[in-house]
Amino acid sequence: MIASYIKETMNSKGSSAIRKMFEEGIALKAKYGDDKVFDFSLGNPDLDPPKKVFDAIKKIADDTSHGCHGYMPNAGYPQVREAMAQKETKEQGIKVTGNCVVMSCGAAGAMNCLFKAVINPGDEVIVPAPFFGEYRHYVHNCQGTLIEVKSKEDFSIDADAIAAALTGKTAAVIINSPNNPSGRVYSEKDIQALAAVLEAHGKKSGRYPYLVCDEPYRAIVFDGKKVAPVFPVYKQAVIVTSFAKNLSLPGERIGYICVNPVCPDCAELVAACIFTTRTLGYVNAPAFFQKVAALSWDSACDYSLYEKRCKEMMQILDYAGIKYAKPEGAFYLFCKVPDGWDDDDAAFVDHMKENMILCAPGSGFGCKGWFRIAYCVSEKTILGSKEAFYKAAHTK
Amino acid sequence: MIASYIKETMNSKGSSAIRKMFEEGIALKAKYGDDKVFDFSLGNPDLDPPKKVFDAIKKIADDTSHGCHGYMPNAGYPQVREAMAQKETKEQGIKVTGNCVVMSCGAAGAMNCLFKAVINPGDEVIVPAPFFGEYRHYVHNCQGTLIEVKSKEDFSIDADAIAAALTGKTAAVIINSPNNPSGRVYSEKDIQALAAVLEAHGKKSGRYPYLVCDEPYRAIVFDGKKVAPVFPVYKQAVIVTSFAKNLSLPGERIGYICVNPVCPDCAELVAACIFTTRTLGYVNAPAFFQKVAALSWDSACDYSLYEKRCKEMMQILDYAGIKYAKPEGAFYLFCKVPDGWDDDDAAFVDHMKENMILCAPGSGFGCKGWFRIAYCVSEKTILGSKEAFYKAAHTK
Repeated sequence: MIASYIKETMNSKGSSAIRKMFEEGIALKAKYGDDKVFDFSLGNPDLDPPKKVFDAIKKIADDTSHGCHGYMPNAGYPQVREAMAQKETKEQGIKVTGNCVVMSCGAAGAMNCLFKAVINPGDEVIVPAPFFGEYRHYVHNCQGTLIEVKSKEDFSIDADAIAAALTGKTAAVIINSPNNPSGRVYSEKDIQALAAVLEAHGKKSGRYPYLVCDEPYRAIVFDGKKVAPVFPVYKQAVIVTSFAKNLSLPGERIGYICVNPVCPDCAELVAACIFTTRTLGYVNAPAFFQKVAALSWDSACDYSLYEKRCKEMMQILDYAGIKYAKPEGAFYLFCKVPDGWDDDDAAFVDHMKENMILCAPGSGFGCKGWFRIAYCVSEKTILGSKEAFYKAAHTK
Repeated sequence: MIASYIKETMNSKGSSAIRKMFEEGIALKAKYGDDKVFDFSLGNPDLDPPKKVFDAIKKIADDTSHGCHGYMPNAGYPQVREAMAQKETKEQGIKVTGNCVVMSCGAAGAMNCLFKAVINPGDEVIVPAPFFGEYRHYVHNCQGTLIEVKSKEDFSIDADAIAAALTGKTAAVIINSPNNPSGRVYSEKDIQALAAVLEAHGKKSGRYPYLVCDEPYRAIVFDGKKVAPVFPVYKQAVIVTSFAKNLSLPGERIGYICVNPVCPDCAELVAACIFTTRTLGYVNAPAFFQKVAALSWDSACDYSLYEKRCKEMMQILDYAGIKYAKPEGAFYLFCKVPDGWDDDDAAFVDHMKENMILCAPGSGFGCKGWFRIAYCVSEKTILGSKEAFYKAAHTK
């Protein structure tokens, strides 16, 4: 007998739509040919991993030393944790050591372990919408509730709205910058305003919500934008991230949790995340790719290619008359469902599919009336989709 | 603020003792030298993976094809699922196809995804004791309760006792053969008796509990023993397993769920496990080692070496006057705490540690008054531990 909640949820619309679309895309491509299907459903990076990653893979593959595929401490290899700390030191601008890091199975695994460590049943987690829809499940897994707070019209954070949503039950606030699906990079000023709100709430209530920064897209920014560091502005900040997007390794499930070293309960939170890594059945991040990450974390793909594709995609949307939020990073375009569809994003996405365009409905991201294009696909797919977009936008 | 349940549990005794001991072992070895510490704490296989595994790793490392580290369907690569189905067809003696298989991050990941798919809050999962203590967490993660049922004196399954424990809330029964920690291989007759009990309960109550067979030690059997197949005897059987123990790859987190193809809700259960793989944040089993497993699943280590070490370990225990259950497989010896310790396994294990022997208290496995030796270590460690065991057993 399948558990009731799973039975109900697995067939519901919403965020499941992304994966369903991805798998339908595989079937459609097999039927009609790769060049006939324009699959913008999933954030599956099209750029190949950097050479340094492939070199690291070969190097680790040559290692046949005793125990090289065996268990290590649940937090990960000490030298790998140190390498990640070096990365965070660079990005956050304050000294981070390896004992603030817990290696994880991707950012999704990181988030589940962190939430399990900090969410009491009945607790709340606040997220500015639009947001990555899977957060709903991650919070629900811990018997928490995800509180969706509307962002400003330009999809920047509305710190006042978040302030109004904070309660004694708020375990955490999630931010994701660059944002999936909007591509928004939160400004330093916005982060400071949010930190001030959390700080004031903590002082008043005695419970400082963790600021969970989901950062897999950090490196993918355009026009010289930069993702502001959070550790210097809020003590209870925790980074969850992976090498899925910046190094194009989503299938390998390699990421980490990094707790702000100045967080008053840093050591206890790290210990709790190590514990939940074990008890949730992750046990440890995959050994092989821990070592690959330690050797190649400072490499990069040519993200200007995503910026180029973004521009090409925007030109097509302009041509089709589809409105969108101009992204500052990541590889998504969040678009308005055209007039005449009553903001029914599911219906419009179905209609797009009939025109061989696969994308994800905005409701899954907490924004009815929108849809997401993942343009981390080949230029050929982008350029080939022009007339299909026009047709989809001008028919019903 | 750390979640209350985690805070309480992470510092409690019990199964945490294994990992704590493993990490203390690393520190003790660094302090006193490898040859002075006899670490039998963790099931971390000492045998190197087979050559076929290393060859597969090199082959997969040479692959630089587009998207080779990208996302694949959440269930895993279709060709990898087919390879695992081939393995199960061979082991279970009935035809299994790839669509019965969901690739997972190890057997622990497999179990968490399966439990999330079938446990309603308040449901129960039955396990014969002694058992792998982590099951407690896996069931608790889904708001279920683990019901421990005593095995017979020889640690074989007591089907009558399990029958008495079945209720309308029983979502599943776990068996683990060869058993961790007892090394018992459940006989075909015992499996049939258990299946009959579950069948009768299902017929009467309308709810057929899933029979969850945790099988990472299946290949590691002694004296020509064989693990009986479950698919032919009970429709609602599900295998969860990994390549951690038989191919010595525990750090790589590669395993799978395989649902009995004749299970009436096979397709729905597979779909539910695919869903929970995603929503628990696993997303997919690591891409690289999925492909390694597909190329090398039919290889093996020389398990006779474990059998040899088992005999050497038993001779040492005999010499020290410590009683134990004679194992039929896996690489653990479950031993009785000597007289004079009032069955206080935690105290005796602490005393062993003072004698530089690291092992795990039986309470963590649901058996007070026992302790577990993981003899999957070097022969040197085993042979070197002789006098330390004698001394520990004869002092207080």
